Amino acid sequence: MPLMDNLTAQRDEVDYVSGRTRVYGIVGDPIEQVRSPEMISAEFASRGLDALMIPIHVLPADFDGCVAQLKRVQNLDGLVFTIPYKRAAVALADDIGADACAIGAINALARRPHGRWAADIFDGMGCVEAFRRRGYAIAGQRLMLIGAGGAGAAIAVAMAHEHPRSMRLHDVDPKRATDVAAIVRSADSSIDVSVGEPLTTGIDILLNASPVGMLTDPRTPVDVSAMAADVIVFDAIVKPEPTKLLALAQARGCRTVSGREMMRGQISKIVDFFSGSGSPVE
Amino acid sequence: MPLMDNLTAQRDEVDYVSGRTRVYGIVGDPIEQVRSPEMISAEFASRGLDALMIPIHVLPADFDGCVAQLKRVQNLDGLVFTIPYKRAAVALADDIGADACAIGAINALARRPHGRWAADIFDGMGCVEAFRRRGYAIAGQRLMLIGAGGAGAAIAVAMAHEHPRSMRLHDVDPKRATDVAAIVRSADSSIDVSVGEPLTTGIDILLNASPVGMLTDPRTPVDVSAMAADVIVFDAIVKPEPTKLLALAQARGCRTVSGREMMRGQISKIVDFFSGSGSPVE
Repeated sequence: MPLMDNLTAQRDEVDYVSGRTRVYGIVGDPIEQVRSPEMISAEFASRGLDALMIPIHVLPADFDGCVAQLKRVQNLDGLVFTIPYKRAAVALADDIGADACAIGAINALARRPHGRWAADIFDGMGCVEAFRRRGYAIAGQRLMLIGAGGAGAAIAVAMAHEHPRSMRLHDVDPKRATDVAAIVRSADSSIDVSVGEPLTTGIDILLNASPVGMLTDPRTPVDVSAMAADVIVFDAIVKPEPTKLLALAQARGCRTVSGREMMRGQISKIVDFFSGSGSPVE
Repeated sequence: MPLMDNLTAQRDEVDYVSGRTRVYGIVGDPIEQVRSPEMISAEFASRGLDALMIPIHVLPADFDGCVAQLKRVQNLDGLVFTIPYKRAAVALADDIGADACAIGAINALARRPHGRWAADIFDGMGCVEAFRRRGYAIAGQRLMLIGAGGAGAAIAVAMAHEHPRSMRLHDVDPKRATDVAAIVRSADSSIDVSVGEPLTTGIDILLNASPVGMLTDPRTPVDVSAMAADVIVFDAIVKPEPTKLLALAQARGCRTVSGREMMRGQISKIVDFFSGSGSPVE
């Protein structure tokens, strides 16, 4: 086990977990890069809730069997899903929020009364909230979004609700980009939606929601050597921090928004959802 | 979720859990009364290990399916088992310590290299260690043990290794008491072993390892109104603290040893086992 610099050393008992603690988990593969355990646990603590979020590393072959049984743990009240499980997790829910239903992906699942489980996706609203906190407008802007998986689709729909002028979508799987384009058009038919290779010119905002650049992956999702300094660049990846994409953008003088800011933007909304408030399907 | 008085309030991130934290759990039904989460987590922290023990409340009908899947969680490295699962958990292990094997019960299961899981039982050595720390001799004493389930059997065997003069065993299920008596005789044939109703006279040490008196159960496992003040009374139950048995014994002037002291006695041995040292089956 790795070493930890911990102020709780030498105490007989810790104060952050007991037999009464309600347990939440974040399920993903890989898991080491996630930020939800420390950030959502801090939000629980700041609200005076005796609850904890732990990392749960589940391999793809084990996902269906393992998560079905995690729901049987009586003091486990909710799960967050990250790469690569946001789509597969839909099958675990009894009630699903409208955007999550359109996207076909969730990132939070909460225990409700009478054995039901409610689900929704918060990545998109976290991203929009991060732009709002920075004071960066989305309305009327030209967006380039790379990655149309669960997180990418959620970001596309949440951005669409903010009325950008145009949105271009790219994914290594063209069908995923085309599917998300159709969802964006349904959300706001006035947006000029297109699908194709990533562009770094003729855009105002570049958004990465692909896994390219995560952890030790040395790549960037697009070549930014011709990108203008007035483009705002967002990366949904939370580790490394900054990602290579954001570091290169900053070196070019661009304003950036980080995956950690998106996380902060959705933390309180997820904890509201876990607490039974703020759910569109309540 | 219940409220918690927590010093970590108002921080953006907590320091006691992250995506890199190794997870351990205690599995039981009920779960609220367990002390392992705060005590074993404190032992991890005091050793500088980035690891946490959480409560895992599993219902009997879910036990087999749920725990098999918990072993598939890649960052879950060990489980502790409490009432009523110490016997059922044996089926989860690949390698079992000798006393646990004789007893047919385990209370700790640890992930080992190459997909193997090692198991052992630590309740008994925790109880012996608690007596040792108090300076109360076991050798040559007359023992009355109530409860011959997983914990009771472990305490019986560990006490037998300390060479008491006699040991009387009682369980609501007479066969369980008879089975444990045979194990004690195998461990040390010089001990005068008997099975029957609980006695509080003609004994030096009274040990409760039954669940009678746990949480809101208002009963005591035996009527102590005729017990002499020089009897030492031990109760394996950790909540309430003190149990009714220990409170009545103290009122009679008896010396007592608590379930929490047994817990303390086994914590470091369990963490040694989880860390890969101290296992008889390594």
